[in-house]
Amino acid sequence: MNGGETTSNNDTIKKRKIDPESRQIIVPPRDAQIHYTPLKTGLCYDVRMRYHAKIFTSYFEYIDPHPEDPRRIYRIYKILAENGLIKDPTLSGIDDIGDLMLKIPVREATSEEILEVHSKEHLDFIESTSKMNREQLLKATESGDSVYFNSDSYASAKLPVGGAIEACKAVVEGRVKNALAVVRPPGHHAEPEAAGGFCLFSNVAIAAKNILKNYPESVRKILILDWDIHHGNGTQKAFYDDDRILYVSLHRFKMGKYYPGTIHGRYDQTGEGKGEGFNCNITWPVGGVGDAEYMWAFEQIVMPMGREFQPDLVIISAGFDAADGDTIGQCHVTPSCYGHMTHMLKSLARGNMAVVLEGGYNLDSIAISALSVAKILIGEPPDELPDVTRDPKPEVIEMIDKVLRIQSKYWKCFKSKFGNAGCDFQEQINNSIATKNFPLQSAIRQQQVRNLSKEFNFSELPIYKSELPEDTILCSSNIYESNTIIICVHDTPEIWAKRDAIQGTIDPSSSIIVDSSLDMIKWAIERKYGVIDINIPQNLLEQENYYSIITAQEVLINLWDNYLKYFPNVNKIAFVGIGDAYSGIVHLLGHRDTRSVVKAVINFVGQKQLKPLVPLVDESLGEWYFKNSLVFSNKNHIYWGDKENKKPRKKYGRVLRCDTDGISNIMEERFEEATDFILDSFEEWSDSE
Amino acid sequence: MNGGETTSNNDTIKKRKIDPESRQIIVPPRDAQIHYTPLKTGLCYDVRMRYHAKIFTSYFEYIDPHPEDPRRIYRIYKILAENGLIKDPTLSGIDDIGDLMLKIPVREATSEEILEVHSKEHLDFIESTSKMNREQLLKATESGDSVYFNSDSYASAKLPVGGAIEACKAVVEGRVKNALAVVRPPGHHAEPEAAGGFCLFSNVAIAAKNILKNYPESVRKILILDWDIHHGNGTQKAFYDDDRILYVSLHRFKMGKYYPGTIHGRYDQTGEGKGEGFNCNITWPVGGVGDAEYMWAFEQIVMPMGREFQPDLVIISAGFDAADGDTIGQCHVTPSCYGHMTHMLKSLARGNMAVVLEGGYNLDSIAISALSVAKILIGEPPDELPDVTRDPKPEVIEMIDKVLRIQSKYWKCFKSKFGNAGCDFQEQINNSIATKNFPLQSAIRQQQVRNLSKEFNFSELPIYKSELPEDTILCSSNIYESNTIIICVHDTPEIWAKRDAIQGTIDPSSSIIVDSSLDMIKWAIERKYGVIDINIPQNLLEQENYYSIITAQEVLINLWDNYLKYFPNVNKIAFVGIGDAYSGIVHLLGHRDTRSVVKAVINFVGQKQLKPLVPLVDESLGEWYFKNSLVFSNKNHIYWGDKENKKPRKKYGRVLRCDTDGISNIMEERFEEATDFILDSFEEWSDSE
Repeated sequence: MNGGETTSNNDTIKKRKIDPESRQIIVPPRDAQIHYTPLKTGLCYDVRMRYHAKIFTSYFEYIDPHPEDPRRIYRIYKILAENGLIKDPTLSGIDDIGDLMLKIPVREATSEEILEVHSKEHLDFIESTSKMNREQLLKATESGDSVYFNSDSYASAKLPVGGAIEACKAVVEGRVKNALAVVRPPGHHAEPEAAGGFCLFSNVAIAAKNILKNYPESVRKILILDWDIHHGNGTQKAFYDDDRILYVSLHRFKMGKYYPGTIHGRYDQTGEGKGEGFNCNITWPVGGVGDAEYMWAFEQIVMPMGREFQPDLVIISAGFDAADGDTIGQCHVTPSCYGHMTHMLKSLARGNMAVVLEGGYNLDSIAISALSVAKILIGEPPDELPDVTRDPKPEVIEMIDKVLRIQSKYWKCFKSKFGNAGCDFQEQINNSIATKNFPLQSAIRQQQVRNLSKEFNFSELPIYKSELPEDTILCSSNIYESNTIIICVHDTPEIWAKRDAIQGTIDPSSSIIVDSSLDMIKWAIERKYGVIDINIPQNLLEQENYYSIITAQEVLINLWDNYLKYFPNVNKIAFVGIGDAYSGIVHLLGHRDTRSVVKAVINFVGQKQLKPLVPLVDESLGEWYFKNSLVFSNKNHIYWGDKENKKPRKKYGRVLRCDTDGISNIMEERFEEATDFILDSFEEWSDSE
Repeated sequence: MNGGETTSNNDTIKKRKIDPESRQIIVPPRDAQIHYTPLKTGLCYDVRMRYHAKIFTSYFEYIDPHPEDPRRIYRIYKILAENGLIKDPTLSGIDDIGDLMLKIPVREATSEEILEVHSKEHLDFIESTSKMNREQLLKATESGDSVYFNSDSYASAKLPVGGAIEACKAVVEGRVKNALAVVRPPGHHAEPEAAGGFCLFSNVAIAAKNILKNYPESVRKILILDWDIHHGNGTQKAFYDDDRILYVSLHRFKMGKYYPGTIHGRYDQTGEGKGEGFNCNITWPVGGVGDAEYMWAFEQIVMPMGREFQPDLVIISAGFDAADGDTIGQCHVTPSCYGHMTHMLKSLARGNMAVVLEGGYNLDSIAISALSVAKILIGEPPDELPDVTRDPKPEVIEMIDKVLRIQSKYWKCFKSKFGNAGCDFQEQINNSIATKNFPLQSAIRQQQVRNLSKEFNFSELPIYKSELPEDTILCSSNIYESNTIIICVHDTPEIWAKRDAIQGTIDPSSSIIVDSSLDMIKWAIERKYGVIDINIPQNLLEQENYYSIITAQEVLINLWDNYLKYFPNVNKIAFVGIGDAYSGIVHLLGHRDTRSVVKAVINFVGQKQLKPLVPLVDESLGEWYFKNSLVFSNKNHIYWGDKENKKPRKKYGRVLRCDTDGISNIMEERFEEATDFILDSFEEWSDSE
């Protein structure tokens, strides 16, 4: 009655031992079949690494110890025991630590191993510290770059190197499924020739070299992911021309002002020679970053790149100084986020992963962060991220975009997904002098010119700067008779476009120019005001917007000195600035005394930088500007930072935070407020009712 | 001598049992501290679910059984045992299955439970089948929508419902860390009122309802991720207005022609009422998708959305019919990819996850796929993806983009990261009739007009179609005297632009128009040919490009009938088509006999659809077109599919596959070939040497 190859008699299969598919009698397997036994997670820890410590020279150092404190590794070990990941009731570093983790003995690295990365001179120098007296040690400490020495330093510093090597070996040889090396002093700042940043030897770099050398068949490629808040200059340098190591670092950069503060940590340092394309610096332009930024970077860059690289081993240079609570890092990565990052990286290299401690100076923060990582290593899922509603900071989204653009030269996953237009863009821009390419902004300005001349009979106002296009300044036909003038100074209007998801190009047929200044001009025309419309072009070849800022300043001064001053009837002027161009207005107001005629200043800044008024003519100009201006910024303008109720300084004018982002959006939101303010200043407010 | 709070005497800590931080004597913890014990993975399996089977009505059904075959669950159970994940040497479904997995007993769901989702009528009908005779069962089978019944169906079908409920319960109550329910018949096509697609009851939907009802405090939100290759219409319907369930389905859609083939599976079906925004259909427009597409969808959509939703439980509706080898799904998801997806989802809801089998019909494929998922559940890392170099199909990248755009209305993670311009775009386009927005394409055409009239003295050629802009056709001043004419018919040129990473808007100051036709025009001018330049605008408000295709056809016919036919001296014409506009040329060549003067046709198609020549005038036109044309397509043009050496049919002309993508790139690549071809046809080839 029943179909298929099954039979409907209950338990038939069991009793007769008939294989339901082959219908043959089952011979029970001789023995339990190869039983799957999950491996443990390896753990490196050794109290001897605590002997390297800073020599006290004052009572102050006793109560406020050096951040790279010997207790760092102890506190991590302790929290693992407290949470049952290891069994060591006396926390003395015993060998048998239970069912979940396997102790990997730590040993001193040999000189031969260290010399794989470091110079003989460097090794000799560190060795020499073991024979120095207190005076000499203090002197060596002082002359170094953020390092300290005591007479145990040499011996102690060989242990994390040996520990990192042994941790990686245990993973590669399949004795553990992954490993955590709780070691110090850290290593990633130690360059081949020099110690630095609390680091004596480059632990992770030496371990990676060692593995590549000794397991040439099974490990051909290693991903080193460095999430310490500082750039791992030492590790980067050791492999900068090596295509077997992909070094990816997430760190604060701050225009090169954050330790170690060299250009080597910049996002455009992508490796050289054979190693070109195998170095990736993801730099935080600002402090205070946290889960949102790290998750964004991992999903957009680290994971696709990691998968394409196909490493045989992943080493995490795990500093915990980006952790919430670390006063050196001043960032807010939560323990869950460290868990999520570890979990994601576990999906590479069939889970072959060694986590090696680097920096991290808040003892509580590093302990709970490391615990979260260890839980993932033994196989637990990550905790939920505490706050998923915060967006990555705009500066970070922009930076990630830059990194993607530069790395898309080397990584197919970015090239194809973010469009050819991405990586060849600069090249095309450079070709724009070539005949078949021309800048979009002039086409758009011409469209504005056609609109304004056709609809409102605007004409060009000649400007005495030959390099600027003739269509820079337009004015309404009533300009010379008007006593009231609105002067609109704007960037080229923005475009809302659909971007081709594959090519990255813009299809003009489905794109629109959103000319926000037009509403303002129409409003002024309706009121029979005179109108001057100024378009400030930008320089295609420049990265920054200095060109347009300076142009705007020159154009406005020029307009004042050659025209406005001499207009016979004018007694009321309102300025409306839009985008970068607004800086020209602020400049003019500080450099000329325009108060007799200028009654109101409205600036729609969007996300552009706020410009202070520098009162060259008269000290009281600042106060005057504050009283007579409205400056509208994006909701998420960098100026506001994380603070809810920041009060801007008066030199910026009366800065208001909009409820939305984007020039066209904030102009729509605040149009009425802006025009009412102008009317008020003109004392024409009652007219508008 | 040594600093900090450490002491340099080796082993001091151990011997004296002094806590190094507090310096107090250590009291060993009374007992081993709370020892961390990892939970097992739950497993549902019951041979009784195999009793539902199709009644044979012919020998044919015996040798080629119904795909929803009772062996499906057995094969999965077997492979788990063979790989040591469970211990059951006789494969009979015993209770004690070893250290890694815990057997969760399967029971029949109660009517009360089933009625939480289904109507009384539906339940009664399914129940009635248990009392039907063979005739009646066959009749019920025939009249249903892809379902079958035997007299065990009712009893069997209550088991997967009970199994799914118990699997979820075990996870939610913390008895297992996660669970795998190897159950059948599947459930996700069963709608509240009707069975369908091999599904009788909606297993996962009923389980989800049950959990929400019985654990209101601990489970407030559930993510149901459905990776079966078919849309889970039943599950979607059960929760379409429910904001407690986020239903995300990845499935083939094929313009609604793939089972179940209703518009409910479309990407723009996002829920209604309270449930608006809690339904997400990620639809594959084409077959043959695999790891690259699924990983892309997960990283771009599923994971950010899942994190923002913050579910308390994740249920995977795990059909394995997208697996490589499944002839129904015709896709290529590898076992590793199923592992990766499971691994990623494990990072949600603190790992609380139940995986419930849905479809999947290749017995080998479902076994190895399910094994890969089970390994992740017990805590193993995923295997490496076998091929990480293949890009997602262009159609899929476009679709993901569409899904992001539509979901960005509801999910902050997309809104902020993909720009406001994304979700408000259509609104803005609709506003483009409004005064302050104007289409970019007319600005760009005007720029072309300025260039051509200034540099080469081009002028407008009037066209008798009032709705087209006057600048549609331009011609060189020598056009009436020329005997040789090049006619360039093109879309509005494309733009290479930097997209604002935050707003999604385009900054015109850093954007360029890449006018590829200009090279061709210059080449023709240099040879003193007459030149006609035709710009075909597109319709802003239309989704598709029909408007421009029809416009191109009308313009070309019009040009032939009113001008070209009457030009006194012309005896050689070459057409150059660029983009969608090229269809106008193909149309003309099929509808008029132009062979006396047209010597060559060059079409740069890029990624646009190939157009066949329809020879209305004379059958031999097709052959003539093939001989006298070159049609250049993108390297990754959809036409080529996965085939290396596809030979296009002659009606498309001589189609050639370029080495690159994008109109401007392929024009650069093939410029010389194209111009040589034209010269050859003009018999002027020797001139060009």
